[in-house]
Amino acid sequence: MRIYDREAGPHPMRVRIVLAEKHLDDEVEFVSVDLIAAAQKQPDFLAMNPIGKIPVLELDDGTIISESTAITEYLDNLDGNPILTGTTPREKGLIHMMQRRAEMMMIDAVDDYFHYGTPGLGAALRPWRMPDWSGAEEWGQRRGAYAVANMPYFNDVLTKQPFLTGDRFSMPDITLFAGLMFADLVGLPIASEFTALHAWRGKVSGRPAVKNRTGQTPRPEDIARLSPVP
Amino acid sequence: MRIYDREAGPHPMRVRIVLAEKHLDDEVEFVSVDLIAAAQKQPDFLAMNPIGKIPVLELDDGTIISESTAITEYLDNLDGNPILTGTTPREKGLIHMMQRRAEMMMIDAVDDYFHYGTPGLGAALRPWRMPDWSGAEEWGQRRGAYAVANMPYFNDVLTKQPFLTGDRFSMPDITLFAGLMFADLVGLPIASEFTALHAWRGKVSGRPAVKNRTGQTPRPEDIARLSPVP
Repeated sequence: MRIYDREAGPHPMRVRIVLAEKHLDDEVEFVSVDLIAAAQKQPDFLAMNPIGKIPVLELDDGTIISESTAITEYLDNLDGNPILTGTTPREKGLIHMMQRRAEMMMIDAVDDYFHYGTPGLGAALRPWRMPDWSGAEEWGQRRGAYAVANMPYFNDVLTKQPFLTGDRFSMPDITLFAGLMFADLVGLPIASEFTALHAWRGKVSGRPAVKNRTGQTPRPEDIARLSPVP
Repeated sequence: MRIYDREAGPHPMRVRIVLAEKHLDDEVEFVSVDLIAAAQKQPDFLAMNPIGKIPVLELDDGTIISESTAITEYLDNLDGNPILTGTTPREKGLIHMMQRRAEMMMIDAVDDYFHYGTPGLGAALRPWRMPDWSGAEEWGQRRGAYAVANMPYFNDVLTKQPFLTGDRFSMPDITLFAGLMFADLVGLPIASEFTALHAWRGKVSGRPAVKNRTGQTPRPEDIARLSPVP
């Protein structure tokens, strides 16, 4: 298998944690995509993923699977023992519900804030970011505010149960973890009063698959690579 | 089981087709949500789904499952014979990839166009639609243009294979079908040159689960209920 991504990115982090949880790290060759140069918006990349985003998984037979949720479903089911995407109908339902909430209410909103409300990854990407639209920056700011406004919701959920879908760590915990790491990097930290969210984050950080992953605790050079480019 | 929705809505259509494909229609009690009155943005509803959107599934034990993808995963796996969400890792991966593409590249963009680029469902919802933001309408227009610009992509996929993930009808076909129905209703029809897309739509329309579903072929009163309110 081959994964097109960029180590420090929040969505690549999602899939890299999945790989580590499934002990599949050694099965994958990583191909680094030059996001600053907008490589993900060029024809070769768009032929794999018309949405123009990383990560993308390429199987040995050339089959392309894009989208973190889809890649997670593939990887988690490879050994016939899904530990992240559920086994019963109820588990699957709750996991996919929380996955969409962690995406829509956090990581997607932070992503929009970063790319529209700040200079994002810089000039090369600007032509793909709703060019000539004077409202783009305000929209980005509103998206950042929406992400912050949703932190109490996740804190409430985690006050009542150890993980987003109940007693067990699963796919949406990875998504929220990456979303909050991204939020931190772009200057939208979790307020100290959200103690359940902080405690949950500490617990997730301590998982071997998260703790030992290269680049998991963002290093200064990772942050520099993701930080707004003037 | 109980489903909170509104018959004519595009996302309710997704779940109602799933129910029919799985022969589960008789297992469900429907509760109609007054979208025009913004009932989906009131505290009772937001306690079920903080995103404030229909449909929402409530199980007999009170468990809430929101998000069409999550509801589909639940319903499709109830009988241990998933026909819409895949059985092999490769099927699951491709189905979830195409599901996200059908959402992001079509139904979500049309939804934004309808609610921001047109008067949408009217005045009661305005406080929840980024109020006091002068750029909202232009953003909505751009989202509609994005949906239309993605029609060639889906046409290309369906030129090469009968359904979005290959030879078999699955979850993302339902999502794209509802997205294109919604696009039609709000004045963004499929251009006649996209013959593969038209042929695929004809084929999906003819499925018993789609054809016989009440409200599937939008009736005038359905359209009136969804049409932009001045």
